[in-house]
Amino acid sequence: MTSETEHPHAGEPVPGSASGRIIISVDAMGGDRGPSAVVSGCAQSVRDNPRVDILLHGDKAVLEPLVARETALAGRLTLVHAEGIVTMHDKPSHVMRHGKDTSMWSAITALKDGTGMAAVSCGNTGALMAVSMLQLRRMEGVNRPAIACLWPSRGRHGFNTMLDVGADVKAEAEDLLAYAIMGVTYFRNGFGEPRPRVGLLNVGTEEHKGRAEIKAAHDLIARHEETGRYEYVGFVEGSDIPSDRVDVIVTDGFTGNVALKTGEGTAKLISDFTRQSLTSGPLAILGAILARGALKRLSGRVDPRRVNGGVFLGLNGTVVKSHGSADSTGVAAAIGLAAKLAQSGYRGRMAERLVIASKTAQDAGPGNGESA
Amino acid sequence: MTSETEHPHAGEPVPGSASGRIIISVDAMGGDRGPSAVVSGCAQSVRDNPRVDILLHGDKAVLEPLVARETALAGRLTLVHAEGIVTMHDKPSHVMRHGKDTSMWSAITALKDGTGMAAVSCGNTGALMAVSMLQLRRMEGVNRPAIACLWPSRGRHGFNTMLDVGADVKAEAEDLLAYAIMGVTYFRNGFGEPRPRVGLLNVGTEEHKGRAEIKAAHDLIARHEETGRYEYVGFVEGSDIPSDRVDVIVTDGFTGNVALKTGEGTAKLISDFTRQSLTSGPLAILGAILARGALKRLSGRVDPRRVNGGVFLGLNGTVVKSHGSADSTGVAAAIGLAAKLAQSGYRGRMAERLVIASKTAQDAGPGNGESA
Repeated sequence: MTSETEHPHAGEPVPGSASGRIIISVDAMGGDRGPSAVVSGCAQSVRDNPRVDILLHGDKAVLEPLVARETALAGRLTLVHAEGIVTMHDKPSHVMRHGKDTSMWSAITALKDGTGMAAVSCGNTGALMAVSMLQLRRMEGVNRPAIACLWPSRGRHGFNTMLDVGADVKAEAEDLLAYAIMGVTYFRNGFGEPRPRVGLLNVGTEEHKGRAEIKAAHDLIARHEETGRYEYVGFVEGSDIPSDRVDVIVTDGFTGNVALKTGEGTAKLISDFTRQSLTSGPLAILGAILARGALKRLSGRVDPRRVNGGVFLGLNGTVVKSHGSADSTGVAAAIGLAAKLAQSGYRGRMAERLVIASKTAQDAGPGNGESA
Repeated sequence: MTSETEHPHAGEPVPGSASGRIIISVDAMGGDRGPSAVVSGCAQSVRDNPRVDILLHGDKAVLEPLVARETALAGRLTLVHAEGIVTMHDKPSHVMRHGKDTSMWSAITALKDGTGMAAVSCGNTGALMAVSMLQLRRMEGVNRPAIACLWPSRGRHGFNTMLDVGADVKAEAEDLLAYAIMGVTYFRNGFGEPRPRVGLLNVGTEEHKGRAEIKAAHDLIARHEETGRYEYVGFVEGSDIPSDRVDVIVTDGFTGNVALKTGEGTAKLISDFTRQSLTSGPLAILGAILARGALKRLSGRVDPRRVNGGVFLGLNGTVVKSHGSADSTGVAAAIGLAAKLAQSGYRGRMAERLVIASKTAQDAGPGNGESA
């Protein structure tokens, strides 16, 4: 692993940066809606971002006609042929051994060899994490990489960040500390918040509650406020995830994944019930027509497609996992997020803090872990 | 433990049943809104249910004037004096040792000695479970009791059941099997569904995903379909909790509690955003006025107060935990649920199935666990 890969934006030259182009490596295959949604999303994203160019990985015979149809993509997209497809049912271990011919593998290779600045895939999350770990390797001080998501919130930035939402079903106390540091750097770069507030997800806010590893993480995260440049607010509950008392919610990937999907499912249920109610009679329909501007702004505020994209944190490269069922708007949002991250240089600063935290967490005894 | 306590509705005489009265033992203290919300809730519930009488536990000096104000309670409520109060911050272990003088303890004692048929408390969940386990004891075949909640859903009954939502932060495979059996009996009695569908909460629906104890529970629950008289649909995800592909969602108390509170928090966020949107301008306000009937029905459909009450399952007695912040409507809903359960006789049938399941789960080797 060269230092360019590890700190791509900390002064060293990065691919495309001389020309000012932002090159995003996109896996065209493996999403629930097939490659046409991905190609449309690419077209939308290059229209939205004049500096973005696309490296699109997949079967050329399938992709060429789709790309030809989108005039916005002329001169902005390069096809990289890859025969194989990772399906949603492939086991990560199988893909790691036999997946070198797939579009997913190819999209991550472009990141490793420096032709792409960030990667996007709608495919199988477990396989994408496995292939990314294998090719990009973990940052120093990271045992378990994590997936961070954005969550519509009452907070001043309109979003909170939660991690891990599904990279690993387990997390030890040291992993949860690393998640705090990674999540804070990500949030600070995304929203310009100098000292984000961190909360640790638990079943109550009292100190005696919860599992053993969570109590240990509670102490560890509290001790590293200075290293990580965050404010630790202590335990938070599920109801606090969208609240304005916290910016970054830290949890293991099992709990985080269930919480994320429960939130999405609840939002979908209420939106379906609302639609049923507002078409249930003439007065309701008339009311809905009059209020349609307000209802549209509302649905924009909680639309999961707007915040599509789980970011893999803790790897030597920026990988954005788009929702498997993302449509073109969702894919464009994920590419936009990847482009923003590719320019931000967050990984260099994250790496420094992770190294400090992992050293002091190992060296220091309890109550003796203050670090500069 | 006598058989009357274990099978209170399987033919043996039960308190109040000769007179046709349903006597609910209510803890007046320890809720976030104080005893006045509880007393109002009692008044509402006796108005709604002509057969319900209340045993109200707490400080007589505080409660007498509150009760005197509610004319509906005349002749329907008996005060039981208890000096002490369990606060939200008391540790369960402390309450178990030093809490004999509290209203919570007194409310559960009434269940144990047979003067009450079911108990309701808005207080500290951990303490309530500890006091209930100590006084009522676990059913045979139950290692960890569970708390079951109702969740608004797309299903034919309008609600799904999830458990455990917070009795214990851990659950082994055998506990998850017991949760399936308990949840199914509860759902069948509540909604008249002959063969409820059970799903096991996981981070994906593929068989290779998830934690070790969940994979073991997957096999165990599949093998006990006949014992428990349910249909096992396999793994479900957070987004399936309100879906119509499952009736009973089984998970450990940590994950279940986070999911429950995340769902509540998401619903609250959307409801607040909706209110903001529908008061954002004259057209929106007019629209909201025209659609107000529809919006009211909608909010009734997802109002958490309507389904207030987590039921403790696996104990020799029926305890309903009301939300700590429940208002009088919420308290009345919890008392209504307790009254319904007190009449239903679900515990006798649950006990039989739990004994069969725990025996076959111990005796049978993998793949050899079919039982009649």
